Amino acid sequence: MPATVTVDAPLPVLGHEVRVPLVTGGEVPYAALDYAASAPALQRVWDDVAAYAPYYGSVHRGAGHLSQLSTDLFENSRATVAEFLGCRPGDDVVFTRSTTDSLNLLAAALPSGTRVFAFESEHHAALLPWGRRADTAVTWLDAPRTPEQAVDALERALAARELHGPALVCVTGASNVTGELWPVRELAAAAHAHGARIVLDAAQLVPHQAVDVAELDVDWVAFSGHKLYAPFGAGVLAGRADWLRRAEPYLAGGGATRSVARGAAGEPVVEWHDTVARHEAGSPNVIGAYAIASACRALTAAGFERLAERERVLLGRLRAGLAGVPGIRVISLFGDDAPRVGVVSFVVDGWNSSHFAAALSAEYGIGVRDGLFCAHPLLRALLVENGGAAGECGAPGEAPAASAIRVSFGVGTPEEHIDRFVRAAGELVRDGARWSYRTEGGRCVPEGPVARGV
Amino acid sequence: MPATVTVDAPLPVLGHEVRVPLVTGGEVPYAALDYAASAPALQRVWDDVAAYAPYYGSVHRGAGHLSQLSTDLFENSRATVAEFLGCRPGDDVVFTRSTTDSLNLLAAALPSGTRVFAFESEHHAALLPWGRRADTAVTWLDAPRTPEQAVDALERALAARELHGPALVCVTGASNVTGELWPVRELAAAAHAHGARIVLDAAQLVPHQAVDVAELDVDWVAFSGHKLYAPFGAGVLAGRADWLRRAEPYLAGGGATRSVARGAAGEPVVEWHDTVARHEAGSPNVIGAYAIASACRALTAAGFERLAERERVLLGRLRAGLAGVPGIRVISLFGDDAPRVGVVSFVVDGWNSSHFAAALSAEYGIGVRDGLFCAHPLLRALLVENGGAAGECGAPGEAPAASAIRVSFGVGTPEEHIDRFVRAAGELVRDGARWSYRTEGGRCVPEGPVARGV
Repeated sequence: MPATVTVDAPLPVLGHEVRVPLVTGGEVPYAALDYAASAPALQRVWDDVAAYAPYYGSVHRGAGHLSQLSTDLFENSRATVAEFLGCRPGDDVVFTRSTTDSLNLLAAALPSGTRVFAFESEHHAALLPWGRRADTAVTWLDAPRTPEQAVDALERALAARELHGPALVCVTGASNVTGELWPVRELAAAAHAHGARIVLDAAQLVPHQAVDVAELDVDWVAFSGHKLYAPFGAGVLAGRADWLRRAEPYLAGGGATRSVARGAAGEPVVEWHDTVARHEAGSPNVIGAYAIASACRALTAAGFERLAERERVLLGRLRAGLAGVPGIRVISLFGDDAPRVGVVSFVVDGWNSSHFAAALSAEYGIGVRDGLFCAHPLLRALLVENGGAAGECGAPGEAPAASAIRVSFGVGTPEEHIDRFVRAAGELVRDGARWSYRTEGGRCVPEGPVARGV
Repeated sequence: MPATVTVDAPLPVLGHEVRVPLVTGGEVPYAALDYAASAPALQRVWDDVAAYAPYYGSVHRGAGHLSQLSTDLFENSRATVAEFLGCRPGDDVVFTRSTTDSLNLLAAALPSGTRVFAFESEHHAALLPWGRRADTAVTWLDAPRTPEQAVDALERALAARELHGPALVCVTGASNVTGELWPVRELAAAAHAHGARIVLDAAQLVPHQAVDVAELDVDWVAFSGHKLYAPFGAGVLAGRADWLRRAEPYLAGGGATRSVARGAAGEPVVEWHDTVARHEAGSPNVIGAYAIASACRALTAAGFERLAERERVLLGRLRAGLAGVPGIRVISLFGDDAPRVGVVSFVVDGWNSSHFAAALSAEYGIGVRDGLFCAHPLLRALLVENGGAAGECGAPGEAPAASAIRVSFGVGTPEEHIDRFVRAAGELVRDGARWSYRTEGGRCVPEGPVARGV
């Protein structure tokens, strides 16, 4: 292990100085390689939040100086996000709590009779909100094996629909499992050609690439602050205002109402806002929204071209390194040559994924993720194809289900994290783990040192 | 204006050093008197969040050191909140985004056929979520004029219901308009005597008093972090697990699912969690939850008895001061002698409330709130009773509707803020504002100095 690390990442993040203990002795700088789940906060985001915090005040009807400042800051954050996403005039930017929340909001706002078209390969956040209303329906599309197949399958499904009522296509921008980019522009064109609308799940895309709503010609985009280096409980749904403003308010409460009168039987008679406030009942999460706006500004200022180029280099190094380790199989839908962001999932022959991930943490100070990544149908299918990841962590009967390992990174990742991971993966496969592990309370925890025949 | 302020508040908050400019020249320390909308962060909460921020990591399935630390911190925060609220064994603590969100979640989780009993005087967050489902119904109760009337009205309504299916009573602990305390224990007893359950809207209660779920014998309690000195986008719904765990998941997405299989037509076949995770789809707001837990610990350590005693002293001073200003009418439901928290609303004869609030800000650096406080039916009724607050801020036709002024404070409020407010109110009523104001962009803004005949 290197004693010190030169942090060569283009945008500093919190936590790069955190050191963690190893079961094998000593401690190392923590290598956070689970950005696709939650990224560390940008130092700049933290600094902006810290600078604002003393000025935090009640928003909207507060008459005081800090209330008005906070209200302006909240609304300016909305404008910053709209600019970051290249929104069209008239588009709404709703602050939600997360991508999951954004897509549930859109699902609740669909006109009655809408048919949704979604691939079975989506993340649960983009898979599960659509089937909940009795007055909407879903057409499920098989996971495609090329981007072209995705477009073809959508074209065919849209062409085959009998009724030409409202329709929505939901698609991810970059897979949270494989990191592969989906043909968003082409899918949007197909959707629009058939009179459907399209929502882009950009949770894994916005941290890696400029996303331009107007240029991609998508109707809505959803993402989370906590994957965009702004982990303060806010997310975004941005796009066409018409369906949103005609829909029932997402939450019932203050802030979403223009006026509430008393009806004859004492019941409230509500006039809802027909602005973006309609779906933002309750006090807004000002700090969460401001943090997202700060991240948007910092990423734009750093230049996505430069960031993406560096990411491609690191990704190449990571993938070349893994290719050199026998028995590691990278999971893919579109094949080796498909463009992708800094997210790689894999299985290791003869290893239980939890065990492998636990050893990476305990013996190398590397934080990855194991599991099914909230995309069970996709991952289960790909695991079957890749020989699964059977095996046990510790005692029989307590083992987690077959699962994969995911490595993901971003603008705060130094090269050393990638290099350490590649070296660790190679050592684990070649020499085995130095400790044994067992499952305890749902976690794979270190048990004791393994006697080596040396 | 004093040049410096001795901050004598029992618990330091962010922002006490912030100075704001006056239209009359110079600047003063900002007096935040809108705690009932959003309170400043406790310094301790901020310090805890800042200390944790570098250790922030992905929660749940992350295998790395910081992921496990963050998961533990999130779950420990849940335990801290349960302890703070005196939850019973088996109660759930769900992290939501706000009180509004908590009550919408409970409304969505009610068993089919539930009848809800609610007073028309509630805040919109506790008023509007109940009428949205076709398979539930609401009995509206008139605003009572004494706590005893509230209990009687509820008793009668519960006794009169025809079907004895599931029933829920929703009641506030302390009014966000009058600050008056509601007879929660008695209402809970009435509810339970008639086989109904009860949810306590504690948004305005938890910042001021210890709330003990078991001792009050309420089934659920809801509150917001941003009113509890922890403004990081999180709230709480705590209480009985049974209805929650049997209900449809609040949001559809990852984290709420135990397993998702592929159905015959490609559709997802979901097995939802039957734990608290069921209603927490999406990545949890770890920082928001931790901030709430930190506030719970800090308030408990400071001692609610001591905090409440000091609040009573300040409240007495505030009310005595206002009583000495001719033409100020404090709004009340239960009368002058009713126990209350540090929330006071009033109207001023001959003054438009927006104008008065704007002058308090621009000429005295005091931040209050004017409006209908998201409790339109209650406030409209009380305004009629108190002679309204008609009048214009600036040009005719642009005036806001009749409204009141609200002053609210808490553990970060120094005596000087209360004293400055009382002095300012007296001066404004006696001498008039020194500047004129006009409505611009929905705000009452300073226009120019008023010539005085001195």
